[in-house]
Amino acid sequence: MGRRVCVVITARPSYSRVKSALRAIQKHAGLELELVVAASALLDRYGNAARYIEQDGFEISARVYMVFEGENLVTSAKSAGLGLVELATVFDNLHPDVVVTIADRYETLSTAVAASYMNIPVAHVQGGEVTGSIDEKVRHAVTKLSNLHFVATQKAAERIIRMGEAPNTVFVTGCPSIDLAASILDNPELDFDPFKKYGGVGSLIDLSGGYIVVLQHPVTTEYYESRHQVTETLCAVRDLGLPTLWFWPNVDAGSDGTSKGIRSFRENEEARSIHFFKNMTPEDFLRLIYNSRCIIGNSSVGIRECSFLGVPVVNIGSRQKGRERGQNVVDVKYHRHEISEAIRYQLGNGRYPSDSIYGHGGAGEQIARLLAEVPLEIEKILAY
Amino acid sequence: MGRRVCVVITARPSYSRVKSALRAIQKHAGLELELVVAASALLDRYGNAARYIEQDGFEISARVYMVFEGENLVTSAKSAGLGLVELATVFDNLHPDVVVTIADRYETLSTAVAASYMNIPVAHVQGGEVTGSIDEKVRHAVTKLSNLHFVATQKAAERIIRMGEAPNTVFVTGCPSIDLAASILDNPELDFDPFKKYGGVGSLIDLSGGYIVVLQHPVTTEYYESRHQVTETLCAVRDLGLPTLWFWPNVDAGSDGTSKGIRSFRENEEARSIHFFKNMTPEDFLRLIYNSRCIIGNSSVGIRECSFLGVPVVNIGSRQKGRERGQNVVDVKYHRHEISEAIRYQLGNGRYPSDSIYGHGGAGEQIARLLAEVPLEIEKILAY
Amino acid sequence: MGRRVCVVITARPSYSRVKSALRAIQKHAGLELELVVAASALLDRYGNAARYIEQDGFEISARVYMVFEGENLVTSAKSAGLGLVELATVFDNLHPDVVVTIADRYETLSTAVAASYMNIPVAHVQGGEVTGSIDEKVRHAVTKLSNLHFVATQKAAERIIRMGEAPNTVFVTGCPSIDLAASILDNPELDFDPFKKYGGVGSLIDLSGGYIVVLQHPVTTEYYESRHQVTETLCAVRDLGLPTLWFWPNVDAGSDGTSKGIRSFRENEEARSIHFFKNMTPEDFLRLIYNSRCIIGNSSVGIRECSFLGVPVVNIGSRQKGRERGQNVVDVKYHRHEISEAIRYQLGNGRYPSDSIYGHGGAGEQIARLLAEVPLEIEKILAY
Amino acid sequence: MGRRVCVVITARPSYSRVKSALRAIQKHAGLELELVVAASALLDRYGNAARYIEQDGFEISARVYMVFEGENLVTSAKSAGLGLVELATVFDNLHPDVVVTIADRYETLSTAVAASYMNIPVAHVQGGEVTGSIDEKVRHAVTKLSNLHFVATQKAAERIIRMGEAPNTVFVTGCPSIDLAASILDNPELDFDPFKKYGGVGSLIDLSGGYIVVLQHPVTTEYYESRHQVTETLCAVRDLGLPTLWFWPNVDAGSDGTSKGIRSFRENEEARSIHFFKNMTPEDFLRLIYNSRCIIGNSSVGIRECSFLGVPVVNIGSRQKGRERGQNVVDVKYHRHEISEAIRYQLGNGRYPSDSIYGHGGAGEQIARLLAEVPLEIEKILAY
Repeated sequence: MGRRVCVVITARPSYSRVKSALRAIQKHAGLELELVVAASALLDRYGNAARYIEQDGFEISARVYMVFEGENLVTSAKSAGLGLVELATVFDNLHPDVVVTIADRYETLSTAVAASYMNIPVAHVQGGEVTGSIDEKVRHAVTKLSNLHFVATQKAAERIIRMGEAPNTVFVTGCPSIDLAASILDNPELDFDPFKKYGGVGSLIDLSGGYIVVLQHPVTTEYYESRHQVTETLCAVRDLGLPTLWFWPNVDAGSDGTSKGIRSFRENEEARSIHFFKNMTPEDFLRLIYNSRCIIGNSSVGIRECSFLGVPVVNIGSRQKGRERGQNVVDVKYHRHEISEAIRYQLGNGRYPSDSIYGHGGAGEQIARLLAEVPLEIEKILAY
Repeated sequence: MGRRVCVVITARPSYSRVKSALRAIQKHAGLELELVVAASALLDRYGNAARYIEQDGFEISARVYMVFEGENLVTSAKSAGLGLVELATVFDNLHPDVVVTIADRYETLSTAVAASYMNIPVAHVQGGEVTGSIDEKVRHAVTKLSNLHFVATQKAAERIIRMGEAPNTVFVTGCPSIDLAASILDNPELDFDPFKKYGGVGSLIDLSGGYIVVLQHPVTTEYYESRHQVTETLCAVRDLGLPTLWFWPNVDAGSDGTSKGIRSFRENEEARSIHFFKNMTPEDFLRLIYNSRCIIGNSSVGIRECSFLGVPVVNIGSRQKGRERGQNVVDVKYHRHEISEAIRYQLGNGRYPSDSIYGHGGAGEQIARLLAEVPLEIEKILAY
Repeated sequence: MGRRVCVVITARPSYSRVKSALRAIQKHAGLELELVVAASALLDRYGNAARYIEQDGFEISARVYMVFEGENLVTSAKSAGLGLVELATVFDNLHPDVVVTIADRYETLSTAVAASYMNIPVAHVQGGEVTGSIDEKVRHAVTKLSNLHFVATQKAAERIIRMGEAPNTVFVTGCPSIDLAASILDNPELDFDPFKKYGGVGSLIDLSGGYIVVLQHPVTTEYYESRHQVTETLCAVRDLGLPTLWFWPNVDAGSDGTSKGIRSFRENEEARSIHFFKNMTPEDFLRLIYNSRCIIGNSSVGIRECSFLGVPVVNIGSRQKGRERGQNVVDVKYHRHEISEAIRYQLGNGRYPSDSIYGHGGAGEQIARLLAEVPLEIEKILAY
Repeated sequence: MGRRVCVVITARPSYSRVKSALRAIQKHAGLELELVVAASALLDRYGNAARYIEQDGFEISARVYMVFEGENLVTSAKSAGLGLVELATVFDNLHPDVVVTIADRYETLSTAVAASYMNIPVAHVQGGEVTGSIDEKVRHAVTKLSNLHFVATQKAAERIIRMGEAPNTVFVTGCPSIDLAASILDNPELDFDPFKKYGGVGSLIDLSGGYIVVLQHPVTTEYYESRHQVTETLCAVRDLGLPTLWFWPNVDAGSDGTSKGIRSFRENEEARSIHFFKNMTPEDFLRLIYNSRCIIGNSSVGIRECSFLGVPVVNIGSRQKGRERGQNVVDVKYHRHEISEAIRYQLGNGRYPSDSIYGHGGAGEQIARLLAEVPLEIEKILAY
């Protein structure tokens, strides 16, 4: 029997991001996939990614509810703690040979800490990038707990090595999220009716003349601003009057403020041209993105997948500060006029050429191959 | 009212290590000390440091039991998780302006994660050092979560800056443990009878002709070896036949193995010249160390306080691998003959000159002053 | 110093229910109130009772977030468990002489278990009543963990004694919720504009011609029915077309289904005559109830406070099954026509005479006096 | 596929107690056994029952570490809470049709609460008995949470019905612990050397002339007395000078006191005729009991299995207060002279006739048959 690879999926975007790697691990003869689905990936309020995971033919080894209500600073910390407690039990029952953790969320950190204390090697996907918010602290802390680093860019690799990681543990695989983006390019049309297939709330709007998509998350370190921040975007989008598809935020400190901002806006019936969604299959989501005229908000999708897909992006605020980006991104502050002006600019510009800064496909297979082949060790020491 | 400084003490050695800083914070007019005592610092089996803390006149703001029974790899991870859950609640009720976390234990990490997610600046004492075991991973992860770094050595400062921390957040204060060591030099005699004052178990032995002290902890990443490792030391010490004072290990994955090794040795009545202790006041402990002919084991006390005190040390195994050390340290493997030979060498050598590699006193006051004066920020970004 | 009485408030209705007792404890010279606010009483989504508690001049000794997201069967159990973990820490830091727990929710059980294991006597308010759902199991389990029973009715006292509790520990104090109901009768007019004062969502409706109020919670043991159940009520109320004030459900397994039913109904714009609220001060809430033409749903408010206030009630389904009730209650199944017919009947009937089945005021003061005077013991034994 | 029956084993004695039921469930064509091993049943310090469970051919579906260090009042409560959190996750992953919980420990309560909130019917073994300590509160609370009651005696059944449980849910199966006791009577000789097979600590003593066995647990509600209480027994046994086999206490608030009492006694080398064990297989344990001249302490084994086996028992203190007992039991207070006198009396008396007050075998099979056949419901209501 091959190495047991345990991947912990805790949020809607994380699933999209590693789906190609999951598939490659599942198919690799020398690997056995143990899939743990936890946190907001189990919650209806956040789009219940578990459902799509099972529809995609992955078997779930364990489910762990671990998100505390409150969506504030205290409950984020507590969710991270409870996740750590229970993931330890899960790992104790599944005894994986290596654990894969993704990006920079609190559950990522829980996963890395649990595995580290249990002498299980940790493989980290998407380390070495630079952003704002608490994610920045968490991402690099996870790097220091990890034994293998599967990074998206050359610069990320360099940063990780400068942080003292052994160069032979750092692999520039590209980001597996790009694999999925690449895979839809053969057949990129919007071949489904998002309202029929996914419901959502808000007006049924006509997408035939083009539409924009909003993905805006709260910034934990600007916790008290989240409601104000989303309201600026709502106003900008309302004033433009374009058909708008809006995705609910992740579960994070501040997402309650974001949700309140959205709900209050809707109450006042100012959101006639906006329809709200919680989730889609990763492929449908990417087709929706690809066919949109502009992406607005602060999601890394705008920086990552959209650079490859050439979709114009208006990136708002500090959340992606410092992250490498392509030409497709215009940065603005939390200011409605600045936002709407930037959207107009991007609409005028249209699609950008594809940029492979975050990879060009094949990352998932490379990650699977490396997980099967590289030596798995737990001891490490600062290289200087 | 001044800044509220919350210090989390979770283990016997951590208390000794920051006692001078606690005193300085307590006395500083611009600071208010909030002291949280948690984990093994509350447990009789590990010497109940809480008792000494109160005897020293510190008021305890909150107590948190958070150690899971098992002392294995799973329970260490779970203890870290539960600590994170409850420390978040504690911080939510105490609302400190800054949280101080010490060294590189799982509770250190829980403290740093809780504070980080709650947008409370984290000050880390003893970062930037290099060792073996899981401590190495944890120490640098804590660095990446921290906003202020109070380090013991110039090299530690350099490492932290190379890891991407902003230089203006890194302060070479020296290690506060040296403050305490310095303080006993005015009056270094062993002015108490350890058996009468602290009980302990084992024979009442005659210390008048000199004695040695053993401090050996399990190495988490060599979990299954802990019983064997301690047995080698036990045999070495037994064969030498010198009066020996032995301190029980910290609570860690593997400490059950260490304890078993000791208990089984005692059952077989081979430990006639050894007396076992769980705890002492920091000052008594340091006097005991100062007056010993040699320290054996893998505690950082051997590297840190003993370099300053000039006490000969036989350091065993990988736990302190990479840590800067003075001339007073001889390194050996887990091998009884190698250990006893090294002890004999050190006995022949006698006291070493004092080395101020880890500081020369005043660290606590400097830390207090910095906590009162430096800007407290939560956002940070990799400096490259 | 008097006895330290720790009261744990975990939900909006629990606060209303014991407010008079809190006040009496606060004023009693022989008692010291320690108030813990936890669970949904801290959450904006559930009306943030903590805010009203502080506005009423109570000091909060500790806050504990303990509700897991999901509002399903698993997360209810986990919330109860986490509450137990953290309340133990809280009690360890507050060291109360007696702990007061209220009614039959999961947090009630957590409170009782924590105190029991810590050898702290438990006083239970509202034991001995009979209802449906999981509450029935929990209420009697709490009775078996409690040392003092402050019950609302003579029958409740008899049941508790038949269950094996010592008669000298059972006190028919009446329900403290009636104290508050009694207190508003001096000045019962609706002296505030609920829309201005509390916002809420939905149409601004004209209340001058009379209105009805809906309070419908999910039934845990009929978990999968909660959405269907609320929809029946929504349809009944819509068809009647009367001005309707609707309160969001408690946090419970199934409340997500209830909320979804409500949200989906609102999306389809069928709820034009309904306005939705999350919370009010206890007094405003009772005035609103008093002045309504009918209360619809399954809240114990309909059975308890409304019997005293003489407000007509249509009680739906199994949640209050078996609970003693006055003449003011008409029971119906989850069926829209049955519901609307019963409402019409009650509108025709008008106000009922006051019934003191659950007390007639003074319960809070009696509870405080008993807490100050009765012997506090922890040992007990089945009386047969 | 048959009904999935989840049994949660959390302690050494619980396993012995239900082993015959486990076997019968395992063999029943209409049932599928899901075995969860948790708490002290996983801990070496408490005899690691998990090892024996696996050796007996049971497959473990999930393991959960849930015991907090401290063995005091706070940590018992926290262990119960954490167990509840994690058992909910376990049940969510195993989705049993019915959960079996045993006796009256905190983990019993965690199991019952988790299942109750998850709408899983709870079957309780050994309800309706009467004792002292916190167990009394917990046992009856578990009864109120349970849907099926498999009781040992007619009186227990009557008590449960008087407490308001529906008579058709109460079954006098006898205690499954008696099944095992009955099974060794075909071949009751002590056919193993306990020192060789189980090690333990203390002198190798000659058992050929007869021996006594001590089983003494702390009494939670007399927490601060546990060290004193065990010392009285130690002195009594030392003064008698008979070969003594002593089993370590369960993990409970106070067991640290009990252990300290034992350790300190051993330090002073007063325990020359005593050998200490942590665990044995249930069958070996019962043979050891059967062949002993007297059982001393406060374990329910003395009341339960020993009444059937006719072994003389000296029962100390309040822990078994109120429990039905046979003629084989002499009750004494925590007083060394009273204890040693009672032992002498029992040695003089010799073996008693077998008493089937707690059953006469076949309980396990009856329980399995009932679990397969009775209707499984979750709703219940007080029968008066």
